[in-house]
Amino acid sequence: MMPGPTRMKSEILSVPQVVAGQMDASLDAYLAFGNRLASLDPNLVVTCARGSSDHAATYFKYLVEICLGVPVASIGPSVSSVYRTRWKLEGTPVIAISQSGGSDDLRLFMEAATRSGAISVSLTNDVASPLARATDTVLDMSAGPELAVAATKTYIASLVALAAIMAGWSRDPSMTEALRALPDDLDRALTCDWSAALERFRNPGSVFVTARGPGLGIANEAALKFKETCLIRAEAFSAAEMIHGPLALSGPSLTALAFLTDDGGREGIEGGVARLRETGSTVFTVDNEKTGAHVLPSVKTGHRLLDPIAQILSFYLFVEELAVSLGLNPDAPQHLNKVTVTR
Amino acid sequence: MMPGPTRMKSEILSVPQVVAGQMDASLDAYLAFGNRLASLDPNLVVTCARGSSDHAATYFKYLVEICLGVPVASIGPSVSSVYRTRWKLEGTPVIAISQSGGSDDLRLFMEAATRSGAISVSLTNDVASPLARATDTVLDMSAGPELAVAATKTYIASLVALAAIMAGWSRDPSMTEALRALPDDLDRALTCDWSAALERFRNPGSVFVTARGPGLGIANEAALKFKETCLIRAEAFSAAEMIHGPLALSGPSLTALAFLTDDGGREGIEGGVARLRETGSTVFTVDNEKTGAHVLPSVKTGHRLLDPIAQILSFYLFVEELAVSLGLNPDAPQHLNKVTVTR
Repeated sequence: MMPGPTRMKSEILSVPQVVAGQMDASLDAYLAFGNRLASLDPNLVVTCARGSSDHAATYFKYLVEICLGVPVASIGPSVSSVYRTRWKLEGTPVIAISQSGGSDDLRLFMEAATRSGAISVSLTNDVASPLARATDTVLDMSAGPELAVAATKTYIASLVALAAIMAGWSRDPSMTEALRALPDDLDRALTCDWSAALERFRNPGSVFVTARGPGLGIANEAALKFKETCLIRAEAFSAAEMIHGPLALSGPSLTALAFLTDDGGREGIEGGVARLRETGSTVFTVDNEKTGAHVLPSVKTGHRLLDPIAQILSFYLFVEELAVSLGLNPDAPQHLNKVTVTR
Repeated sequence: MMPGPTRMKSEILSVPQVVAGQMDASLDAYLAFGNRLASLDPNLVVTCARGSSDHAATYFKYLVEICLGVPVASIGPSVSSVYRTRWKLEGTPVIAISQSGGSDDLRLFMEAATRSGAISVSLTNDVASPLARATDTVLDMSAGPELAVAATKTYIASLVALAAIMAGWSRDPSMTEALRALPDDLDRALTCDWSAALERFRNPGSVFVTARGPGLGIANEAALKFKETCLIRAEAFSAAEMIHGPLALSGPSLTALAFLTDDGGREGIEGGVARLRETGSTVFTVDNEKTGAHVLPSVKTGHRLLDPIAQILSFYLFVEELAVSLGLNPDAPQHLNKVTVTR
């Protein structure tokens, strides 16, 4: 008897439905929180997260900075839990992101932030978690229980929630409309065929993942998933940082994955890709509704800031298939547990 | 005839003298700027930098957050140069760090920041550079011309300047005193013998570099130098992030370098090191004035927040020797130039 699909694959395939449910259950709450931020008109937003959730925070950072010019500071939870800092965060929106809400260090930081007068918010898939109890406002990822060790549907649910907060904050009805249509786009993202890249990534040498702007949040996530599920040593760089040093490693033994978007960052990424190719590296570009020898298709959503969400879903399908083809079980990455406890 | 030392090595050996000169030339200016920050009492500091300079910004971020609880946001220059954001930075101290001051994207960001009413500051080794001209306040690294492609003395000069700003801001006379004594500590740091690690790092498999708090800024820098000068694929993680996913790659083919400090972060790093060792990885710990089978010595300075500065100098000496022993010329890393132009 054939074994069934991995839990990771089942959860990847459920994403369009999960996001549809999330829109029904929580879109209004996300938009309302965004509207509240618009009224508060803060000069700063702070995020606190680890692992995949921190990559979602990076996506949000670029949305906030590009759309509104408000700086976003990412604070490591250890600065509170280990160094016991007294924070100066009065009136500052501080958003913690955590699927499980179970990390002690995040909870400690959010307790300290709340004590210092911050507007403390948790975005979590467990609204009864210790983290949720430490914050003034709780936003539900509404993704349903996640069983795979490698987060997929909760990562995408985080991106969707953060994009919806931005839609409310920037009062951009086109983004809200695109969010409502996102489940259909994500259905199409599951049909994107990346098999052209499978053979090369089975023995890729070094792997660089690159992007720019909001795409950097998904490049970080893709690099982590290569590590977790395929034991591939992948590292993500912004297209600009990549040519400040890491380029020294470029050459025929390098494989790169570049996430392209239809915005001002495109030219810079294309320039970085050209530099890599000049050195003999193999580069696959993820591009909207294009295909080619080294072009991996991804769908275009109704708003360019949402395109990275569809791209990472197509990537997830690819990386799970790659892991299985390497004889690895993506549901049981070595040395890892679902909830990582750090201080 | 034997070839002379590399330019990189000459510059590494000059660091104690460079820092002594920097203290004479610019310590008062750094302290005065720190005092100005104390008077301003900001709720936020923004940094903007690339490559090694961004690693110096990371060191500063932890100093500011740990000592004062003020969040520090690192903004990618591309958010201005590519996405043309209008910033909300009125009254916010915004510090750009760049050895050359020649990157167009940094200049464009600082012009935008200055226009938006920021308190704009450049820390640069060329006070006549385009970047310096774009800022209200110019702080001189006072490191003298740097000829090697791989920055060493200007990176350390950046750390010293940023620590001095913190000494002024936190009004901590013990830190100022320790800064004045730093050239002697750095002289001792040049005598630290890391040859025990040479053989393993000549063929290290994967390399992880880890630290916590201010040490993370030097872990990032060490990983970049492994890449630039030795073509070693090294990646830096905070000790906490390391066990969120990257741990999957741990095993006998992994070599790790862990920078230990005598602060609240120590226990967490030691825990991460133990997890790596359990999987069969080889881990070298950089520790203050200790030696052992896998302990690489580093000197203890007069202030624990300055200890990472001495550690990275000992590392530089090691990585240059490693590059030469691998038959590589650290003065001519492939594909790289001294000034990287990015938008």
